[in-house]
Amino acid sequence: MDTSKVAAVVGAGPGLGAALARRFAREGYAVGLFARSESSLLPVQQALTKTGARAGIYPADATDAASLASAFTRLRQELGEPQVCIYNAGAFAMAGLLELTPEQFESSWRIGCMGAFHTAREVVPAMLARGRGTLLFTGATASLRGGARFAAFAVGKFGLRALAQSLAREMGPRGIHVAHVIIDGTIGHEASTMLSPDAIAETYWQLHRQEPSAWTQELDLRPATEKF
Amino acid sequence: MDTSKVAAVVGAGPGLGAALARRFAREGYAVGLFARSESSLLPVQQALTKTGARAGIYPADATDAASLASAFTRLRQELGEPQVCIYNAGAFAMAGLLELTPEQFESSWRIGCMGAFHTAREVVPAMLARGRGTLLFTGATASLRGGARFAAFAVGKFGLRALAQSLAREMGPRGIHVAHVIIDGTIGHEASTMLSPDAIAETYWQLHRQEPSAWTQELDLRPATEKF
Amino acid sequence: MDTSKVAAVVGAGPGLGAALARRFAREGYAVGLFARSESSLLPVQQALTKTGARAGIYPADATDAASLASAFTRLRQELGEPQVCIYNAGAFAMAGLLELTPEQFESSWRIGCMGAFHTAREVVPAMLARGRGTLLFTGATASLRGGARFAAFAVGKFGLRALAQSLAREMGPRGIHVAHVIIDGTIGHEASTMLSPDAIAETYWQLHRQEPSAWTQELDLRPATEKF
Amino acid sequence: MDTSKVAAVVGAGPGLGAALARRFAREGYAVGLFARSESSLLPVQQALTKTGARAGIYPADATDAASLASAFTRLRQELGEPQVCIYNAGAFAMAGLLELTPEQFESSWRIGCMGAFHTAREVVPAMLARGRGTLLFTGATASLRGGARFAAFAVGKFGLRALAQSLAREMGPRGIHVAHVIIDGTIGHEASTMLSPDAIAETYWQLHRQEPSAWTQELDLRPATEKF
Repeated sequence: MDTSKVAAVVGAGPGLGAALARRFAREGYAVGLFARSESSLLPVQQALTKTGARAGIYPADATDAASLASAFTRLRQELGEPQVCIYNAGAFAMAGLLELTPEQFESSWRIGCMGAFHTAREVVPAMLARGRGTLLFTGATASLRGGARFAAFAVGKFGLRALAQSLAREMGPRGIHVAHVIIDGTIGHEASTMLSPDAIAETYWQLHRQEPSAWTQELDLRPATEKF
Repeated sequence: MDTSKVAAVVGAGPGLGAALARRFAREGYAVGLFARSESSLLPVQQALTKTGARAGIYPADATDAASLASAFTRLRQELGEPQVCIYNAGAFAMAGLLELTPEQFESSWRIGCMGAFHTAREVVPAMLARGRGTLLFTGATASLRGGARFAAFAVGKFGLRALAQSLAREMGPRGIHVAHVIIDGTIGHEASTMLSPDAIAETYWQLHRQEPSAWTQELDLRPATEKF
Repeated sequence: MDTSKVAAVVGAGPGLGAALARRFAREGYAVGLFARSESSLLPVQQALTKTGARAGIYPADATDAASLASAFTRLRQELGEPQVCIYNAGAFAMAGLLELTPEQFESSWRIGCMGAFHTAREVVPAMLARGRGTLLFTGATASLRGGARFAAFAVGKFGLRALAQSLAREMGPRGIHVAHVIIDGTIGHEASTMLSPDAIAETYWQLHRQEPSAWTQELDLRPATEKF
Repeated sequence: MDTSKVAAVVGAGPGLGAALARRFAREGYAVGLFARSESSLLPVQQALTKTGARAGIYPADATDAASLASAFTRLRQELGEPQVCIYNAGAFAMAGLLELTPEQFESSWRIGCMGAFHTAREVVPAMLARGRGTLLFTGATASLRGGARFAAFAVGKFGLRALAQSLAREMGPRGIHVAHVIIDGTIGHEASTMLSPDAIAETYWQLHRQEPSAWTQELDLRPATEKF
């Protein structure tokens, strides 16, 4: 079993997650697919397998350290240690201050930040041992700008950006490329107004390919037609 | 009892919290002092009372909605609804990704963001009813920049900034002035290299005084000698 | 003649310039009024004089070093060296890339940046000698964000912000407070939707009053009702 | 003559300019090399020609509209209209406010912004007619941050960023991809501490390859070891 090319995608349901998995699979990566529900992972895995790719599914709650740890243990046993890991989990929330419950506010942060923290802790030790690795985080418009009725979502996304920056500064000199991708717009298949998942995935792949001599820490992505 | 001038300071221990309380007291405000430990509030209250100011102490855990709610209920009964509320709580944390425990990571966010969320929900309804009010949040260098070994602290401070921006956009048009103060440096009494608590408090006071025609949403504060 | 309180306002026509002059005059400052056309300065001077303030007018083209130097020489002779200087000149321009002439593009930069550079060089030497002084720059929404048809204006305003930041870092440790004010909205007298010149001027005054222990380098100002 | 693949590099001397030319030549692009001095362009052209690439040299002063126009006219006649144009010109300057001459301050802006403005006006009309094209601008650390003794350089680089943003918003919906690359560090050949020109050029190439459905407007590049 070739374990030199393994990618983990946390938040690997249909849409961007699946496109990321496809893009890395195309380069010969075995892909570990993580999401809360097994049923959202199965079609992604089947589509990958059909193309001849190796893909494992690892249902787990990323916000729960134990659940995530046991999923990553299985990944290591079945496919190997990931050289690249993408944290693509998130949940959109929109409500005014007085309509939000504390539970919603907290849950948005858990999926935005706590899951990313647990994920980084799973993959970083082996990357440090090897002196290389790539860690990519999916941000949004709300990573840079709070908005009326966006408090819960923006707190999670600002926080994720803080985590990505902090890890980049801590881990970059030790060989791990940490980058944050700000997706500014709607992901979908209306080519003229939405971000195509495959086009986004291409940029994630290029980030992974960058040499340590010229790494990107942050970039934005949006459709040509998007107002910003 | 004159209830037209009441200020609440959440995070009102010695240092900046006490200076903020003094500054508003000087303008005739009754001040509600909030912090986890009663013992840190007592000397602040005593010093205020000596100057003839009215000050109540409300020990509470801001990250716990019920604890904070009962403290605010007492504040309303004893002093009245606050026209201005300052969220100044926070706890510094510094550790690398693999040294941090999930509990530390979460706790930094709870005091950074969850406490601010609960606090805003306590004071905003009366401010909306009145069509005016001021909500001030204390940020830090880490509000704008993650750093190696600063993941936990920066996630909380980025998140607080997201909350402040979101509330400003939601509540500004309804009469509530929400501002975020980035304190870039060490607070203390070495005049040439540190931020004096009283000098900082003066700017909070001026933010509260601003007319709705020209409100500041964010400003920074640092000593003349600080590198930045 | 008391020369300990002198303020210079470059860009002192009606509107914000006049309000800034009034605000400093109210504190006993003699005010030097600079603008290209004498006719726009005369009514401002007359209104100030009527209130008992001392005000001199210094018609000059701030983008022309010689013109500005001779105006400042007159200011020094008549009122004294300024302790505070506000660069408030600017000219709005709006056109697409292919409609703009190179002359318009350049002219927007000259008034945005070159005039500010000349102005800083006029007042900084005496401030350095004295070990104190305040230099305030007027920015705009376009200081932070380019826009379609805003290339010329944004280039000047981004550049002015760069100058203000660079001077703050160079001159702050030597006692000169350099701050940049981002005015996000329309200045005028429709209280509910526009920034009142007097309300803006109040914040400039408070910036000047800040102690070196807690200086602001940048803040924004906008009406409560402004979308941002 | 195949005119469907033409790239123009303004600021094409040795170093990054040459690497950009090589990268596009490798994909079959004929490359127009622009710089002030013919002697700095000749070795770049010779090296390209040796690899079988087509490369023309166009000595011109980018800050002078007429000089640049005649160089672009020659480019169009010899190679064709560029589908991609990179503005990579710049001149480092470092001096305190009182040491800088107005000429140095202005010259830094001319090469930073005016040359980019003239360049954009040369290539945009044909891109608009065709409904597609790529315009890339080279930024620096000083694009985001002024510094003591960096006033002249930062004013030019902030301004260039403003121009890039404004053009992205004006031209993006009309099919032209405008991106700004912030190079944070020293370009050179000490692999562990410097940005390799070829590694940077790879990212420019990938920016050009992006589909309109997911365009990057801005990204940063720095060595893994760089403090930031």
